[in-house]
Amino acid sequence: MRIPLDHDSTVPLYQQIETYLRQNIISGKLLPETRLPATRQLAEKLGVSRITVTNAYAELESEGLIYSREGSGTYVSPPVSSATSPAHQAEILWPLWQHGLETDDDLPQHLRPDQISQQTVHPNPIIFSGVGDPRQFPIKDFGKAIQSVIRRDGQTAFKYGGFDGGYRPLRRTISHVLATQGIQANPDNTLITAGSQQAIALVCQLLLKPGDVILVEKPSYNLALELFQTCHLNIVGVSMDEQGMQVEQVETLLQQYHPKLIYTMPNFQNPTGVCLNGPRRRMLIQLAERYNVPILEDEFVGDLRYNGRVQPAIKALDQNGTVIYIGTFSKMLMPGLRAGYLVADGPVFDRLVSYKRVSDLTTSTLIQRALDEYVTIGRYQTHLRRSCRRYRQRRDAIITAIKQYLPTVHFNPPQGGLFIWLELPEQVSSLALLPLAMQEGVGFSPGSNFFIHRTEGERYLRLNFATHTLEDIEVGIQRLAVAMRRLH
Amino acid sequence: MRIPLDHDSTVPLYQQIETYLRQNIISGKLLPETRLPATRQLAEKLGVSRITVTNAYAELESEGLIYSREGSGTYVSPPVSSATSPAHQAEILWPLWQHGLETDDDLPQHLRPDQISQQTVHPNPIIFSGVGDPRQFPIKDFGKAIQSVIRRDGQTAFKYGGFDGGYRPLRRTISHVLATQGIQANPDNTLITAGSQQAIALVCQLLLKPGDVILVEKPSYNLALELFQTCHLNIVGVSMDEQGMQVEQVETLLQQYHPKLIYTMPNFQNPTGVCLNGPRRRMLIQLAERYNVPILEDEFVGDLRYNGRVQPAIKALDQNGTVIYIGTFSKMLMPGLRAGYLVADGPVFDRLVSYKRVSDLTTSTLIQRALDEYVTIGRYQTHLRRSCRRYRQRRDAIITAIKQYLPTVHFNPPQGGLFIWLELPEQVSSLALLPLAMQEGVGFSPGSNFFIHRTEGERYLRLNFATHTLEDIEVGIQRLAVAMRRLH
Repeated sequence: MRIPLDHDSTVPLYQQIETYLRQNIISGKLLPETRLPATRQLAEKLGVSRITVTNAYAELESEGLIYSREGSGTYVSPPVSSATSPAHQAEILWPLWQHGLETDDDLPQHLRPDQISQQTVHPNPIIFSGVGDPRQFPIKDFGKAIQSVIRRDGQTAFKYGGFDGGYRPLRRTISHVLATQGIQANPDNTLITAGSQQAIALVCQLLLKPGDVILVEKPSYNLALELFQTCHLNIVGVSMDEQGMQVEQVETLLQQYHPKLIYTMPNFQNPTGVCLNGPRRRMLIQLAERYNVPILEDEFVGDLRYNGRVQPAIKALDQNGTVIYIGTFSKMLMPGLRAGYLVADGPVFDRLVSYKRVSDLTTSTLIQRALDEYVTIGRYQTHLRRSCRRYRQRRDAIITAIKQYLPTVHFNPPQGGLFIWLELPEQVSSLALLPLAMQEGVGFSPGSNFFIHRTEGERYLRLNFATHTLEDIEVGIQRLAVAMRRLH
Repeated sequence: MRIPLDHDSTVPLYQQIETYLRQNIISGKLLPETRLPATRQLAEKLGVSRITVTNAYAELESEGLIYSREGSGTYVSPPVSSATSPAHQAEILWPLWQHGLETDDDLPQHLRPDQISQQTVHPNPIIFSGVGDPRQFPIKDFGKAIQSVIRRDGQTAFKYGGFDGGYRPLRRTISHVLATQGIQANPDNTLITAGSQQAIALVCQLLLKPGDVILVEKPSYNLALELFQTCHLNIVGVSMDEQGMQVEQVETLLQQYHPKLIYTMPNFQNPTGVCLNGPRRRMLIQLAERYNVPILEDEFVGDLRYNGRVQPAIKALDQNGTVIYIGTFSKMLMPGLRAGYLVADGPVFDRLVSYKRVSDLTTSTLIQRALDEYVTIGRYQTHLRRSCRRYRQRRDAIITAIKQYLPTVHFNPPQGGLFIWLELPEQVSSLALLPLAMQEGVGFSPGSNFFIHRTEGERYLRLNFATHTLEDIEVGIQRLAVAMRRLH
């Protein structure tokens, strides 16, 4: 097997191998049940280290494209449609109670980043998706933190624990970090969750029932929208401008729809990257108090500010328990840890703790203890400063590149965060652009992912500028420009 | 500070220190804001290693009984009622939408093991609760597995991944293990969940709505009951005998209540320890098929069989997707990892994958990869054999001790699992017995935890015999006998 490798590329060698194999498996050049070379052989042939090949195989295996038989080697998987379980064969008649489930396709099928990158056959694609830059993950230090927790706590790190809201020292650490942002948190109003997604889900399950109305920014975070639809909520969108949600419209909506929850991401919103301005924050909490509606404030990456003035969290303005605040270390540290938190005051807090307990008992004890071991305020601030410096350069680079190569595209320069939100020229559809872009070797999240009525997002797309090098950012935007020209 | 230590006790030294301090904090002998000795000092004074004291402090800190100020030392926490957040002060008027939450106390307040052990002031209590024996946890090997995953996968181990059901190699490993039990699983019908609790929760959220009827064994697993009540389901219990759920009653109940789900734990049921016999398994799935009701089969610790004949899983009898099967490595390995799985066939599987995604995106990537690294069939079987050998001795010991010291108590000797279920003599209430038992230094789970109508469980109690040494089992049962005598 001859795999062309570019040793000077910024794309890691294992990814080049992985991409080559994926392309050949998807295109059918490598047939199912083809035996792949042993990692040692292939490594020798390509002149790379064995771990490089192992990494490439591991990725393909995790996608199900290849599989290994113990003692026999690694093989190309059979196509998914012919899975081996008899229950997957077409002639099975599923029980009646499953029939409704089959046809319930009211949920939008968002394009996920992993699906986008699997579609491309370009040898070296630049996908502007993901969260923080994995190259910034403090992998080594976190590995050490795990070992030191295992040494220190022994069995206890592997038992159940923290049924009352999570590992208490971690809750204390989080509340110290939040205190630096003006939020009055303490271990007794802080609950550890499996990422911020679980925090949103718990709030929905507790406070809303099918058919209830929820107010959200339009556009909004795609996985929150997917959750709200799964819970059969009625989603009412509030338009945005460059100062965030148009809170001036909210009072009318409150009177008209009687929503049970307002969901907002006031800092560097996903997907638009904009911040809610100060007066609107104050107006929003006043309205919420007056109309007796809780606010769910999703602090996505508020810490990642590159310029402009910090606004107080809405939770910091909260005097009586109107705001439920959720945050996560995922974006700053490592999303695969799945650890987030929520801060809530009043009876709602204890009920959320109960819902968490019946949902999954607790979040991994080991991960909680290791996070607490790893995260100190000093370390967090250092990591933050380093990320801000790097991501600011990348934001500047993507703005420069867009201005140069995509002059017909509109955008608001984001003051922080991870995303830039592009408005395409009239009659250019981001969904039509995506396959051409993929052919050119660049990927993005189409705007329709972030709207309930998908067509409203047709002229938009979201780029994550934080995960790529300055060179790749420029190359990626050049490729996008080529794809745009091909569309016309 | 003079802490009496018994170096010959089977209770670890750190637990003795911990218990002494807890007792003194709860009783008020150590006042809030008292500064505790530095770990180094105390270790020297007691003649123990510093890590022993650190462990004791860490446990007390995780319970919130003490806290540390950076650079200043460790202090006794203020009592919980006077938390420092202004939002916790009594004069706050919570928003109106929180008022309903305050008074919604229709949920039973089960006594949790951590609460039971915090109540005791005995210096060396023996609490018959928990799951597997923490001393059996493969801590060192699992720590190595984590390190080797971090070395092998790098960043990838900390990214999101497996949105389609979890880390695929782990799903393959699980399906191989299940194949040895006659269950046709494969990566495409296997979903990784945050423990089996999340699997139960996902099924409830997808298939049932508030007011729907669910059939469960009576008694049943307390945290499943708590979940069903949180979801506002109508729970209908089916009585049990020494052959498990009385399936003969089920047809009438199906006709009368039209349940939307049957929840059962057919092997070594929690709390009774009994197994559903073969004919009843076949009858149950026939009824479920005829009446179009899904079965949720909770495989708790079916592997831990000490004698008697293995019955096929209900899922192994399933031909058309009637059974959703859930399992976990928690009981065999380490519950604090929070990793379980479900196996389902038909359209319901994809919907459960969607629900999992909106609930918490994925289960920790690192933990999934480390589990897959650690769990091989050979290793799993070895661990299983070792656990069976040890737990069988403990079951025999508890049966002998109960016969000797508690002759008026009735029980069915369990053929496997972790639990023995005791029926007390008439007019003896396990809830009345518990505080006396605690004073004598022995803890158990009162039977009322496992019934919807709590009074039905009054004469029962559940003991976990797997977590204690043979000596402690005998001492614990002796103490229980003393407490029983005091009750009369």
